[in-house]
Parts: sequence; structure tokens; C-alpha cells
Amino acid sequence: MSDFRYAVNVLPKPGILDPQGRAVEQSLPHLHVTSVSSVRVGRRVELTVSADSEAAALAVVDGLAKELLSNPLIESYELELLEATSSAASK
Amino acid sequence: MSDFRYAVNVLPKPGILDPQGRAVEQSLPHLHVTSVSSVRVGRRVELTVSADSEAAALAVVDGLAKELLSNPLIESYELELLEATSSAASK
Repeated sequence: MSDFRYAVNVLPKPGILDPQGRAVEQSLPHLHVTSVSSVRVGRRVELTVSADSEAAALAVVDGLAKELLSNPLIESYELELLEATSSAASK
Repeated sequence: MSDFRYAVNVLPKPGILDPQGRAVEQSLPHLHVTSVSSVRVGRRVELTVSADSEAAALAVVDGLAKELLSNPLIESYELELLEATSSAASK
């Protein structure tokens, strides 16, 4: 068994309203920042999966991303493998 | 001038309570998932900066991450360069 640390990046799909992104954009002038645009705000979930292989771990994370961590109607997600560590003493 | 697309990943610092992470962990048994642990939920902000150099763009993003996009008392952030595209016809 190994431990796999994944990140799930969830962002509003293109064309979907993003009120948090708009809020950030509207506060930029108050900070005298004029060079920033196209702000999108989403979620980042980091989690550890115990699995026999990277493929098995990926399947678990992908299932969670789809069913629990994102709303497929309005959000898209990307998976990112952060770290893989083999657990001690597999016999 | 070039356009730099950055991601700012904001996560609760270690030791800081993470109610959203706990909520995800508590819903795992209902999905019959037992191999997932150490869930942390944060934000991911993607934005585009126009700047003369990557260093200048990074400085802008770092300032925003510190002042607007994270709460340094309870959150840490990481910056990720996603894409750099030079704007057309700089004369």
C-alpha cells in the first residue's frame, strides 16, 4: 500500500457566472492594481488516498471529484498528483 | 508586455480548523470510501497579469495573494505559473 497526495482543482466552467471572481476584479482598483484581469475563483481540495497503485488511487480521487467535490453542471475539475509515498513494511 | 496566467492556491495552515475538510471527511463513509484521509479544503484563484517580465508579474500576484486573496493569520498560499504568452506587436 502506498499513500498518494492529490489536489483537486475545481473552477467554474467558462461562461458560467463567477461572482467571487467579479468581486475580486472589482476590488482591484482600490488596491491600485490595473494589470490583472480574467479572475476566476474556485476551490482546491487536497487529500491523501491509500491504494495499491497510482491508477487505483486516481480512480478513487476522480470518483470523489465527480460525485462530491464538484458540481459537473457548472464546474470543471483537474487532478494533480502532489506526492506518492510507499507505506512501510508491506509483507 | 506579456500576459502571465497564475494560480494562487490558498489553504488553511496546519493546525487551523478546517470545517469544510471535516465535512468532506464525514461524508466519505456514505459514499463507501474508506481509503481517503487528511482532507483540506481551500481556494484556487486563477488570474492573468500583464507585465514586462515574469518577475514583475510575480510581484503583483504575490502582493494580491497576501493582501486580498488570503488571510495570512490562518491561511498559507502558493503561486503557480500556468502560462506565459507574449502580447502581439510590442514596438
